[in-house]
Amino acid sequence: MKLKCPICGKTYDEPVQRCECGEPVEFEAFNAEPYLGKTVWERFWDFWPIEPAMELSLGEGDTPLVKSKLGKELGVRLYLKNETTNPTWSFKDRGTFLAVSYAVKAGYKAIGTVSTGNMAASVAAYATRAGLKAKILVSESTSGEKLKAVSVYGADVIRVRGDYGRLYFESLELGEKLGIYFINSDNPFRVEGYKGIAFEITEELTPDYVLIPTSSGGLFRGIAKGFIELKESGLIDKLPTLIAVQAEGCSPVCRAFREEKERIERFENPKTIAKAIANPYPPSGNAVLKLLHEFGWKCTAVSDEEILEAQRELAGEGLFVQPASATGIAALKKLMEMEEIKEGAKVVSILTGSGLKALSHVEGGKVRECSLESLEECLR
Amino acid sequence: MKLKCPICGKTYDEPVQRCECGEPVEFEAFNAEPYLGKTVWERFWDFWPIEPAMELSLGEGDTPLVKSKLGKELGVRLYLKNETTNPTWSFKDRGTFLAVSYAVKAGYKAIGTVSTGNMAASVAAYATRAGLKAKILVSESTSGEKLKAVSVYGADVIRVRGDYGRLYFESLELGEKLGIYFINSDNPFRVEGYKGIAFEITEELTPDYVLIPTSSGGLFRGIAKGFIELKESGLIDKLPTLIAVQAEGCSPVCRAFREEKERIERFENPKTIAKAIANPYPPSGNAVLKLLHEFGWKCTAVSDEEILEAQRELAGEGLFVQPASATGIAALKKLMEMEEIKEGAKVVSILTGSGLKALSHVEGGKVRECSLESLEECLR
Repeated sequence: MKLKCPICGKTYDEPVQRCECGEPVEFEAFNAEPYLGKTVWERFWDFWPIEPAMELSLGEGDTPLVKSKLGKELGVRLYLKNETTNPTWSFKDRGTFLAVSYAVKAGYKAIGTVSTGNMAASVAAYATRAGLKAKILVSESTSGEKLKAVSVYGADVIRVRGDYGRLYFESLELGEKLGIYFINSDNPFRVEGYKGIAFEITEELTPDYVLIPTSSGGLFRGIAKGFIELKESGLIDKLPTLIAVQAEGCSPVCRAFREEKERIERFENPKTIAKAIANPYPPSGNAVLKLLHEFGWKCTAVSDEEILEAQRELAGEGLFVQPASATGIAALKKLMEMEEIKEGAKVVSILTGSGLKALSHVEGGKVRECSLESLEECLR
Repeated sequence: MKLKCPICGKTYDEPVQRCECGEPVEFEAFNAEPYLGKTVWERFWDFWPIEPAMELSLGEGDTPLVKSKLGKELGVRLYLKNETTNPTWSFKDRGTFLAVSYAVKAGYKAIGTVSTGNMAASVAAYATRAGLKAKILVSESTSGEKLKAVSVYGADVIRVRGDYGRLYFESLELGEKLGIYFINSDNPFRVEGYKGIAFEITEELTPDYVLIPTSSGGLFRGIAKGFIELKESGLIDKLPTLIAVQAEGCSPVCRAFREEKERIERFENPKTIAKAIANPYPPSGNAVLKLLHEFGWKCTAVSDEEILEAQRELAGEGLFVQPASATGIAALKKLMEMEEIKEGAKVVSILTGSGLKALSHVEGGKVRECSLESLEECLR
């Protein structure tokens, strides 16, 4: 199976992590047909670059697609892809599972990642499941409380002083030298794992638009590749319009897109409540930008205020998500106002991670006090 | 559809919540056949006492059954039913969904529950999904932090001063008077919803033993009823041995079982880290006790130390659960030592809720410090 750089086009026969030109690499497109099967891994068996090691699976994928009531208000048919029901409660598990399948097959004894949130927990969980050591590199500023949900899996958690952006590249280099397979945000196997989201959506409906919270760009690239492969395999007739969504306070891809640039630039002084998508210099930023240009897709940035409002609205539907996961709904409202999404369109928004992961950002609602004796009055 | 008291045998044609004798009621056993279908609700359509209102579903149920590595160590074939991947990250969602389906059909405008944890979040989420008001009654001692994950759904959260045990019965009475449908822990529709766990397990294997964390008794009764209906419908040949598991510090059912009593007694001064199963006077306690006697099933109590060890071992498999959910594994180890479970047996343990729900009880693992310059050394 060949890997290819989506920017310069160079191909590789060995499983490199990035192209010599500095950009990410990706597996060539698969052209195949689905099977019957219980899990998305089995149904789309011929679409993965490596045999999924089902004995290492924790049951990731096959998440619910929930019809949203918000859609009615907004005048679209809105569906929410709830990735918070994955084994470590975020979409990351899909990519981690496939990358760990590779790491085990390739004989690695240790894996790692650079993350402070969802990906850290996911890599730690699948590493211990597979009997591998895990090296989780986190930034200086990460709180001990946040790391509890990571260290509980028994990973080696290392808080690194120094430039966090450099850490991404440094870890890949050191990993190669030391025999540690680093599964960072846009690792090629990880990107392949995210294709499952496109496959599962397509099993239920043919969306006109898909809203994707975008940070490093790995999730966006994965979902895009999934739809592209479905089209090339003759399983769908046309591609949906994919919309990369970022937080205004950290929107390097949207900024470059708006300014019609071909390359992203580092976003200085990032500041947003949507921590899970606050990468100021996304390693797949240029690759996402190229997809947006090539297919006439879009990038939309939303404010923290809009994000928090969308988070409340989603909770009002029974779905409690972390702020980053609410960006899609915030963007949808904006795009409807600007008439960039037509009334009646079928829209899917990806809910990337559980609200329990970022409880400290949540304003608690009111709690009333009452005595058992006056309960009847309180309940009226 | 008739309701029946499992203790005194009295039957009811109207949907009462409890028998006149004070015990819970339950729907008569269903005898039916499954269909093909995507969700457990569709596949077992004829086994529910009310038509599931699929438009109100958040995608609950159809959770992964994960093969455990711990089983090998212990000499059994161990499978973990991971209920933490439900929409509000606990098994409660199955019961809530079915009970809300009923409440909507019956014309209620408000629902409620008495809970401080998983059930509170679940009822709040499904209420708002269905456009119903939610009244969540919590005990005086519940912390504001814990209630954030409940109030975020927009429920009316009321902290009630006074005896928490009385609150269960008081709420049912007031609810009837005020037109609020209280979906407490062993509500008959709730119990029906939990049957899905037995159905899904049976679709994958025929267990010899099923370990069930037991508090109010609603979950135990639901899983038991599910297996009994499968047997009466000729879909399985024999019932598994069900094992109710409690924390030693609050084990009214196990105590009564050990002392060969027919009735439970209030467990004074309950004290355990497994807060989610710390009901000192379980409203379905007598009904569970009767099932244990009737079918020759078991009750096992485990210490906080054993629970915390099991929680760590489960995290070591990639599954981070709340303490209550680890009791099954703690009990399994005990029963293996006592040779009450045979080597080679097929065992399923129910993982009831996510570890993120009780992060404050988790000991954080070690976090190392390192500079970017010395990263290579740190990684070696």
